[in-house]
Amino acid sequence: MNRAHLSNELLYKIIKEKHNQLPTIMKEVGIDCWLIFARETASTPDPAMELAVGGEVVGKSAFVFSLKDGVLNKTAIVAYFDANATKKKGLWDEVIGCTEGIVEPMQQLFRTIDPSKIGINFSKSDVTSDGLTYGMYLILEEILSEMKDRFCSATPLIRALRGRKTPIEIELVTKACELTEEINRKIAPQFKIGMSEFDIQQLFFEEMEKQGVEEAWQRDCCPSIDAGPNKELGHDSPQKDLKIQKGHTLHNDFGVRLKGYCSDIQRMWYFGKEEDIPEELIHAFETVRDAIQRAADYIKPGVPAYMVDKQARDYVIERGYDEYMHSLGHQVGKQAHDGGVNLGARWKIYNGVTDLPVEENSIYTLELEVKTKHYGQVSLEEDIVVTKDGCRFLVPPQRKFITIE
Amino acid sequence: MNRAHLSNELLYKIIKEKHNQLPTIMKEVGIDCWLIFARETASTPDPAMELAVGGEVVGKSAFVFSLKDGVLNKTAIVAYFDANATKKKGLWDEVIGCTEGIVEPMQQLFRTIDPSKIGINFSKSDVTSDGLTYGMYLILEEILSEMKDRFCSATPLIRALRGRKTPIEIELVTKACELTEEINRKIAPQFKIGMSEFDIQQLFFEEMEKQGVEEAWQRDCCPSIDAGPNKELGHDSPQKDLKIQKGHTLHNDFGVRLKGYCSDIQRMWYFGKEEDIPEELIHAFETVRDAIQRAADYIKPGVPAYMVDKQARDYVIERGYDEYMHSLGHQVGKQAHDGGVNLGARWKIYNGVTDLPVEENSIYTLELEVKTKHYGQVSLEEDIVVTKDGCRFLVPPQRKFITIE
Repeated sequence: MNRAHLSNELLYKIIKEKHNQLPTIMKEVGIDCWLIFARETASTPDPAMELAVGGEVVGKSAFVFSLKDGVLNKTAIVAYFDANATKKKGLWDEVIGCTEGIVEPMQQLFRTIDPSKIGINFSKSDVTSDGLTYGMYLILEEILSEMKDRFCSATPLIRALRGRKTPIEIELVTKACELTEEINRKIAPQFKIGMSEFDIQQLFFEEMEKQGVEEAWQRDCCPSIDAGPNKELGHDSPQKDLKIQKGHTLHNDFGVRLKGYCSDIQRMWYFGKEEDIPEELIHAFETVRDAIQRAADYIKPGVPAYMVDKQARDYVIERGYDEYMHSLGHQVGKQAHDGGVNLGARWKIYNGVTDLPVEENSIYTLELEVKTKHYGQVSLEEDIVVTKDGCRFLVPPQRKFITIE
Repeated sequence: MNRAHLSNELLYKIIKEKHNQLPTIMKEVGIDCWLIFARETASTPDPAMELAVGGEVVGKSAFVFSLKDGVLNKTAIVAYFDANATKKKGLWDEVIGCTEGIVEPMQQLFRTIDPSKIGINFSKSDVTSDGLTYGMYLILEEILSEMKDRFCSATPLIRALRGRKTPIEIELVTKACELTEEINRKIAPQFKIGMSEFDIQQLFFEEMEKQGVEEAWQRDCCPSIDAGPNKELGHDSPQKDLKIQKGHTLHNDFGVRLKGYCSDIQRMWYFGKEEDIPEELIHAFETVRDAIQRAADYIKPGVPAYMVDKQARDYVIERGYDEYMHSLGHQVGKQAHDGGVNLGARWKIYNGVTDLPVEENSIYTLELEVKTKHYGQVSLEEDIVVTKDGCRFLVPPQRKFITIE
C-alpha cells in the first residue's frame, strides 16, 4: 500500500475524534445545527467533507449535526447509491438513503430538529469554511425556505474544528515534517554547481516517488526551487536557465502529503565554505531565524494572532529590512494552507481574523523572508504546534546555512 | 516522471485549444464575458480552473474572457505572488499582479470591457459549472455591485467547452480506457475461487501503482468489486467477507486517471465453464449488452439526450426487467463524471438537461444493469465518443462473460 494514503480505519478514527470535539465547539460558538450540503465532491469538494465526513458522495447529500441538551445527533441524508458506503463508515446515528430525492427527507429532519441556528459553509474570509457552492446555496434556500432566516456562517465552528488538532493529527503532521526533512537531507548531497532549478526539482520528484508520497500543494512548485540572487520568491516554478553557482544560495519551499496530512517547510543552502559566507547573508539569515524564534517564544494559547506576527515583523524592521508582505504564519493540517486564524498583521484583507486568539493544539507555519542587496532573498519556514503554555517545533528549526562545497 | 501526471507543456497546449473554442461558444450562448473567480484552489477548486486556467492560485484571482467584435481578450488578475507562474503559462493577453488587492483592478477592467453579460460559475443542475463558492459570490457582488444585473450562469458556456473534446482530449481519454482494459486483462488470471472482494481490489491497487496511474474516483470504490448474487451494486466498497465462488459472477467498475483524463468502464466475469453459464445470466447479459448497442446505434449529434437513454431503457423493460434508476450515460473527461448534458430520462431531477441535444466530440459512458432472480445484478459500462454521424467505442465493448475456470 502506498504510504501516501490514509487507511480508512485511521481516517474514520480521526473523524470520530473530530465529531467528539463538536458538542463543546457548537456550545461555544452558539450554533446548534451544522449542515454540510454537497454533491459530486470529487469535482467540487467542500473542504468540510474531509474534516467531518470522509470519502466522496455523488448525489446531493446533507450531513447534519445537531446539538440538543448537550447531546449530539448525527444524520446523513444521501442518495440511495451512496447509502451503503456512508453507513459502513460507522460515523452516523442514522443514514437515510433517498431514491426520490433529498428534499422531503431534509425538510422532515429539519422540522424535527427545529434548530435555532443552521450553520452552513460559506465565508468571505476563511477559505476552508467556504465550501458551499452558490448553486447549492440556491438549492438549499429552496429546500429549507421556511428556515432561511436561521442560516448563519459555520465559520467559527469550522475554524475551531479544523484548528484544534487531535493527538493523532499532530502526530501525522509531525511525520510529514520529518519526512520532508529526511528528503531534504537525502537529496542535498546530490546538489552540484551548474545544476538548474529544474534539475533539482526532478531529484525531489524522484525521491518522492520512491518514498510513495505526494506533494502538499501543486506539483509545479512543490518543492519550489530558487537558485541565486535573481529569483523572486513566490509561487513560481523552477527555471531551466537558473543554475547553482559557487557563492550563491539555494532555497526551497517544500511539503509532502503523508496519510492525508501536510507539511510546509523552507530551507536554505549555501554553495561554498562556511567561513566564506558573506556577512550580508549571515546578517539576513540570523534576522529571519531570530524573528521566527521571537514569534515562537511569544506564541501561546490566548494571545491575539496579530501580536505573534508583530514580534517577527518589528524585529525585521528593527534590523533594517523591509517588512514581509504576507502573514507570518498559516495553519497546516489536511491542507498545506489549512484555513482558520492566521498569524498576520491587522490588515484590512484579513477581515479581523488576525485579532482572534491563538488556540492550543493549532499547527502553524512561522515563515518570512528578507531581501539582501547582493544575494537575493533569505527565507525560512518552520512548523510549530501550540502547546498549553507555548509552542513546540515539529522538527528542529534551521539554525544556520547548510553549506555544500 | 510518473505517467499519471500531465506535463505542463501538454496541459497548456490543451488549454489553448479550449481557449480557441471560446469565441464560437460565447457567440452561440450569448455570453460576451466569462469570469472565473477563485482563490486557494488547492482546497476549494472550481472545476473550471482545470479546464481553462491550469494549475492553482493562492490569492483571490479573476480570469476574464471577453469577446468584442469576434475578438477574444484574455486577462488574468492575480495576487502578486501568483503572477509569475500565471504569466509563464503563456495563456493570457495580460496578467495583472496585485499587491493592493484585486478590487480596483477588477473594477477598472470590467468598466473597460463593459460587457452586456457576465457569465459566472454557478448552476443548480450542472455540477462542473458550479465552482463559485457562496462566500466568493458575496465578495463578487460587492466588487462588481454596479454590474450585478449583468451576472448570469455560465453553464451553457462551460457545458459546451467541457463537452466538446479536442482531438488531444479524445486521445487521452482513449488511452485511459486502453490502460483500464490492459489492467483488467492482466489481473483477471490472478482471480481465484475463495478470494474476497477486498483481496481483488488490492490486486488492482498493486497494478495501478506499478503502472503509475491514479484512480479516476475515490479509492474506496475504484475499482468497485462485486462478487456473487448478494452484493447490491452502487458506490460501495469491497467487502472482506464476500468471496468468489464457482458458478458466481464478478463485476467491477473501474477507471484510471492518466495524464489528467479519466476512464470509466464496467466488466463482468463468470467463474465456471462457458457452457455452464446459466440461461438466466446469459439472458440478462445479452439484454444489457444489446441495450447499450441500441443506444450506440442511435446516438449522433443533434438527437435529444433523453432519446438515447430511451433506446436502452425501453429495451430493458421489453425484455422483462425493471428499468435502471439512473441515467444511461454521463460525460467522461477531466472528471469521471464530467458534467454537462447527461443521457438520462426526462426526470424532474435533471432540470430539463436531458432535453438538450447530443454534440459531436462528446465522450459518454453507456451503462446500465438488470437484476436477475438467482445471480444478482448484471451490469456493463462502455465509453464512446460521438462522431459526425454516430459514435465510436473508445475500446471494444464486452460481448460476453469472460470465463475463469
